[in-house]
Amino acid sequence: MQSIIRALVALSALASAAVGQTIYPIDRAQILTGASFDFKVEFPGAVAASDIKVTIDGEDAAKVLGREPLIAVDEDDLGHTAYWIRGVRMAKPCTAIVEATAGDKRATVTWTVYGTPEGRLAKNVILLIGDGMSMAHRTAARMLSKGIVEGRYGGELAMDDMPHMALVSTSGTDSIVTDSANAMTAYATGHKTCVNALGVYCALNSSTLGHPNIETIAELAKRRLGIAVGVVTDTEIEDATPAGMVAHTRKRTDYNNIVRMFYSLQPEVILGGGTPNFLPKGEARAKREDNQNYIEKFAEAGYTFVDTATQLAAAAAKPETTKLLGLFNDKNIDGSLDRKFLKKGTVAKFPDQPDLTDEMRAALAVLSRSDKGFLLMVEAGRIDKYSHSLDWERAVYDTIMLDNTVKLAKDFAAKNNDTLIIVVPDHAHPVSIIGTYDDSKGEQLRDRLQTYSAAQFPNYPAPDAEGYPATVEVSRRLAMVFAAYPDYCDPGKPYLAGENQPTAPTASAEGDKQPAVANEEYCKPGAARKIGNLPFTARTGVHAADDVVLTASGPGADAFRGRVDNTFVFRAMARALGLGS
Amino acid sequence: MQSIIRALVALSALASAAVGQTIYPIDRAQILTGASFDFKVEFPGAVAASDIKVTIDGEDAAKVLGREPLIAVDEDDLGHTAYWIRGVRMAKPCTAIVEATAGDKRATVTWTVYGTPEGRLAKNVILLIGDGMSMAHRTAARMLSKGIVEGRYGGELAMDDMPHMALVSTSGTDSIVTDSANAMTAYATGHKTCVNALGVYCALNSSTLGHPNIETIAELAKRRLGIAVGVVTDTEIEDATPAGMVAHTRKRTDYNNIVRMFYSLQPEVILGGGTPNFLPKGEARAKREDNQNYIEKFAEAGYTFVDTATQLAAAAAKPETTKLLGLFNDKNIDGSLDRKFLKKGTVAKFPDQPDLTDEMRAALAVLSRSDKGFLLMVEAGRIDKYSHSLDWERAVYDTIMLDNTVKLAKDFAAKNNDTLIIVVPDHAHPVSIIGTYDDSKGEQLRDRLQTYSAAQFPNYPAPDAEGYPATVEVSRRLAMVFAAYPDYCDPGKPYLAGENQPTAPTASAEGDKQPAVANEEYCKPGAARKIGNLPFTARTGVHAADDVVLTASGPGADAFRGRVDNTFVFRAMARALGLGS
Repeated sequence: MQSIIRALVALSALASAAVGQTIYPIDRAQILTGASFDFKVEFPGAVAASDIKVTIDGEDAAKVLGREPLIAVDEDDLGHTAYWIRGVRMAKPCTAIVEATAGDKRATVTWTVYGTPEGRLAKNVILLIGDGMSMAHRTAARMLSKGIVEGRYGGELAMDDMPHMALVSTSGTDSIVTDSANAMTAYATGHKTCVNALGVYCALNSSTLGHPNIETIAELAKRRLGIAVGVVTDTEIEDATPAGMVAHTRKRTDYNNIVRMFYSLQPEVILGGGTPNFLPKGEARAKREDNQNYIEKFAEAGYTFVDTATQLAAAAAKPETTKLLGLFNDKNIDGSLDRKFLKKGTVAKFPDQPDLTDEMRAALAVLSRSDKGFLLMVEAGRIDKYSHSLDWERAVYDTIMLDNTVKLAKDFAAKNNDTLIIVVPDHAHPVSIIGTYDDSKGEQLRDRLQTYSAAQFPNYPAPDAEGYPATVEVSRRLAMVFAAYPDYCDPGKPYLAGENQPTAPTASAEGDKQPAVANEEYCKPGAARKIGNLPFTARTGVHAADDVVLTASGPGADAFRGRVDNTFVFRAMARALGLGS
Repeated sequence: MQSIIRALVALSALASAAVGQTIYPIDRAQILTGASFDFKVEFPGAVAASDIKVTIDGEDAAKVLGREPLIAVDEDDLGHTAYWIRGVRMAKPCTAIVEATAGDKRATVTWTVYGTPEGRLAKNVILLIGDGMSMAHRTAARMLSKGIVEGRYGGELAMDDMPHMALVSTSGTDSIVTDSANAMTAYATGHKTCVNALGVYCALNSSTLGHPNIETIAELAKRRLGIAVGVVTDTEIEDATPAGMVAHTRKRTDYNNIVRMFYSLQPEVILGGGTPNFLPKGEARAKREDNQNYIEKFAEAGYTFVDTATQLAAAAAKPETTKLLGLFNDKNIDGSLDRKFLKKGTVAKFPDQPDLTDEMRAALAVLSRSDKGFLLMVEAGRIDKYSHSLDWERAVYDTIMLDNTVKLAKDFAAKNNDTLIIVVPDHAHPVSIIGTYDDSKGEQLRDRLQTYSAAQFPNYPAPDAEGYPATVEVSRRLAMVFAAYPDYCDPGKPYLAGENQPTAPTASAEGDKQPAVANEEYCKPGAARKIGNLPFTARTGVHAADDVVLTASGPGADAFRGRVDNTFVFRAMARALGLGS
């Protein structure tokens, strides 16, 4: 025990020394052999090149990495001196001690460089991400889609019925609470980074594109194995989770550049929303700042472009389709509750959007045309977005949609035992099921809330063939509540007219900096007016730092047990594909 | 898929028909071969015995079960007719269809009767229960006891580092939300039941002791294997979780009878709080309604009685101690934050209370004197109680205490690979970590709350040898918040003066039926006044229906994967001990 304590004390000391994070990759980074990364050291002040000494295990870093450094004094006019060796790789597994000195300044970090066994365990890897999917979403999805009678469910979720399980810790380098950008970077690169960063460490650079890059698994898979890559989501394709497969930017909202990065890597299948950032400046709907038309560019590069579910199915069915770009909404694709039942959101404007299962079927059809196998990332991204808007019914319907997609993955994998399937959230939301709301029990929401035995069971109708109850408007509903919120009114009822917007809309970005106020639209009799606990300018719910649950099946899934860092998901995928051998 | 839908529709139909729950065990009950249970059928109204026909797989139930029924017309003057065959067993694995008819009234249920393989997989079983332990408790316990730097922990919890994991669904027969009584009944008997019930199905009987009994694993283990049994907790020993090992009562607060039931079964090790219900009426501190002195009775039955940690260690160290009763507090044993650091709660009155690890060491010493092996249940019960009082620091310190206890179990098991260890909560609380409170950021709690990158990492001191930071009073603390609460004031600070009491104390049970009001003691400047979302009479937080995480190691632990019902924990223990063979 004493040695553990000493180690912890040592860790704390390192943490203080590392406040400037002067060496990238950072202390305790885990680096896959052969994976590319930018090596950077930042020294405070102006330091002469001749005063800088950087070693790896005592040897000159330039010699070890086989390339001369670039020294930038007063980099970006920020007053520090940068030592760069970009695009390097570590060849062999080892524990590497990196030291950087300049006069009396000194920093040291330790890297773990790991390889993978010879050969591939899996031909294909499918990574299914439930963005923000928490335990309560999963439990509620099972209640609604399988039914629960006298405490027993009528069946299992596809994501439950998998042989391997682990807890995943999601914290990033800067905070216990992650966002989807650094969470996805951990899955895609095996490196933790800071909030808002995609495929880079957060260094002192002023340009969002200037930070030290880390190679993504999509890049690795293409470069080292030449396998096909798919990036599939129901959010804008430029959003953090899909972008994390291809992007290197300090700022997740850098959508113009993210589209360029998609084009640069050219994943064989790209499906999601977010058309405007593909369109050249001046065109209607366009959000690009340049004159590039990326839909045309992808078409010229051999992609079939589709923008409806009907076109998607048709294109995927053609044996000659091996590259597919589908953009189905200017923003996010509407969730399943809106698309299938309520017809709200942007369903009128985009009446033929695909379900995530439609996207999955198309992606599997196209990608399985690759003899070399494939790597496919599929995200149900609106579980998170609807949780931000405190709209649990929409979030849970999309959890059911994700589970249907998991089933498709499992059915695909069942044909040959050569596909690793991983189902995992990227972070949690602070949400729980505390009972039911029973409309017969009073006017005030607190009277209607039933806990313990009074909660009984919700009376949603039996689910349809896809696991969806035909309506969420029943007399005894789940009471699924959030622990973090702005000032808002909680009607305790589903938002039938469209996604919840808890706070009053603001006219401008400037308005968003002012304190939020409740959206009075929901402050009708029977609703509960809630005084927020979030910072006054917060307009939606926030992420939680709680661990999340991963389930997995197929070759390589046995790597998952106990608790793992989110970076381990990359490591397990790299192992399954033999990316480090 | 259509067949699943049909099954669900059928289930819903059964659910309507089963509203009266007229057959016990209920539909879809899973029954261990050779385990004893009371078979009961309730018919509405007065029914003549000659009109009653009860069959199991078409054969007269009395013949199948080998015993004649007792018919009680207008049972307990409640207007129904009861058909009873008490203390029966099913001999062989099967799917049994039970039909009960009386005139035109008819009900049917299906039981699954399962056995266990020949022989025992494990000599010993240790079941460690974190009462109410949710994902956030586990995550926070890791942050505090292992440290977290740049997103990586300084080590693993003992409960994380176990090879098998499953999600456990906790709902009972009457509601999606369980309490610790029916949750423990599921673990102890393999049967789901209703809130507040211990070791019985919830029938129409008026007496709390008259309901259909189900044999507990402690009873089974003693009766069938003659192995030693330990029941260890930091709550009152009569509280729901420990009581669930021995008790059969519809009402968990039936403490006098629960002590009698402990005496009746005589588990070899009984450690906890709750002395007064052992003392005869008239004695100081006594809460018994009769004249029995159970401390004396246990002593006469060969038990060594101890009431301090010092005595506990001494008694356990004596090789001749094979029966041990320890009662260390009139109520619950104080939590680790109070005992070890703050010296609040009842520490002044009971200055020498054991830690759960002390109890564990003593229990292992005494129980391992049994050549035949043992079954040990250990509960960290105040994780739940402190979560009810919205006092997360105390709950998390006790989660660390539980983890230290898990480590002792693992160390014990490491000597011989003959011990199944299961670590599991019984239900969740609606609690999450949403960031940190930074005292330098303002006066109002909402200003101090930091989310995402602003949250950074909490600055608790490095943990001591047992994993506890020496203080919780630091400038950047975890913001661990509850989603369900009465009107109360949240200071956003640890409760250094003693366990939080969110609502104003009431003078009487009658007072508890009135609407609760915030405890003004905490409504100081800087605290956030919160309008509750719970029913107006609720005085504390409530349980959540979210799934919980089970981890396990040792022979038989491989049974755990995917999602299981809480009843499966019994089944896995029965399998490991070969109780059904």
